[in-house]
Amino acid sequence: MNRLAEVFGRLPGIGQKTAERLTYYVLRATREEMSDFAHAIMDVKNTVAHCSRCHNITESDPCPICADSRRDSGVICVVEEPKDLFAIEAAGNYRGVYHVLMGRIAPLDGVGPEALTIASLIERVKGETVTEVIIATNPNLEGDGTAMAIAKALEGLDVRVTRLARGLPTGSAIEYANASILADALAGRTMVSQ
Amino acid sequence: MNRLAEVFGRLPGIGQKTAERLTYYVLRATREEMSDFAHAIMDVKNTVAHCSRCHNITESDPCPICADSRRDSGVICVVEEPKDLFAIEAAGNYRGVYHVLMGRIAPLDGVGPEALTIASLIERVKGETVTEVIIATNPNLEGDGTAMAIAKALEGLDVRVTRLARGLPTGSAIEYANASILADALAGRTMVSQ
Repeated sequence: MNRLAEVFGRLPGIGQKTAERLTYYVLRATREEMSDFAHAIMDVKNTVAHCSRCHNITESDPCPICADSRRDSGVICVVEEPKDLFAIEAAGNYRGVYHVLMGRIAPLDGVGPEALTIASLIERVKGETVTEVIIATNPNLEGDGTAMAIAKALEGLDVRVTRLARGLPTGSAIEYANASILADALAGRTMVSQ
Repeated sequence: MNRLAEVFGRLPGIGQKTAERLTYYVLRATREEMSDFAHAIMDVKNTVAHCSRCHNITESDPCPICADSRRDSGVICVVEEPKDLFAIEAAGNYRGVYHVLMGRIAPLDGVGPEALTIASLIERVKGETVTEVIIATNPNLEGDGTAMAIAKALEGLDVRVTRLARGLPTGSAIEYANASILADALAGRTMVSQ
């Protein structure tokens, strides 16, 4: 029982108290329920792998997005994590494909560019017909550093390199925007088509 | 006493309970403290007016920003309210001047373009040497409608019309951005200088 509580406690966001509560739940549940639970965990580990092309998590290789012929494989959106890909997919208006870095460059955590899938991205740009790479790393310090490293790695290759727009979030108000957001919004101001 | 509570209750964000509490505070305070308070209110009403050029609230006309010769009077940033101007000033990197609309076009509230200072903006663009008008209305439905009306009113005049950039706010994360923000960020993506 102590061992199970310890295993639960290793999960992110679960402290000692919750770990004990979950352990008691397992004790009270039927043998069948818990067998389902254990099998679901192992099924995920056994069937979910990474797409050999874009590195997204997938049950088939290539993943359904890379395999979808209706998508524009000439435009690659580079994201840090699968959850970023899911957020952009949920927005529903992107028709290109992806490349998942599986992290960001974080010198303080000892994560350098070689820990990411940047080399594999360069291979894709060289080997496939890619017209544009959209860098969609997070709009923060580590995301910006990672974006710079990717742009540098793509230097000299015949491909358009772009980044997601930075500025005021739709639906917000100028009076609540901080100095960095307003500076970005001013610097990136766009022509109004008249 | 009831009359004072009623007057306090008319202030924005102050309900009946708070109005009563403030009334008791006035009763407990010294005559001198309350005289200062009353005079401060009347002083603001007597000395603060609107700048005849940019319509910002000011104690002198023209306002200190319009009168500042170190600022670029050829670039006019158009905002809805004085509080938006203060937010952009606080960010500290804008060196042009302003034009305060004193509101936004809001058909549901019966506010049309004639209630704003758009005509005065057109006069400024025609009469002064203006190279750029930056429309900095809020990034929401009414702000967008107001921006379109201003752009239309400026049509045919020899001036660059721009808008603040819309996109991901600096310091946020892609996984928490909603569909509109991600759509703006994708549509407005910028070339990475390499």
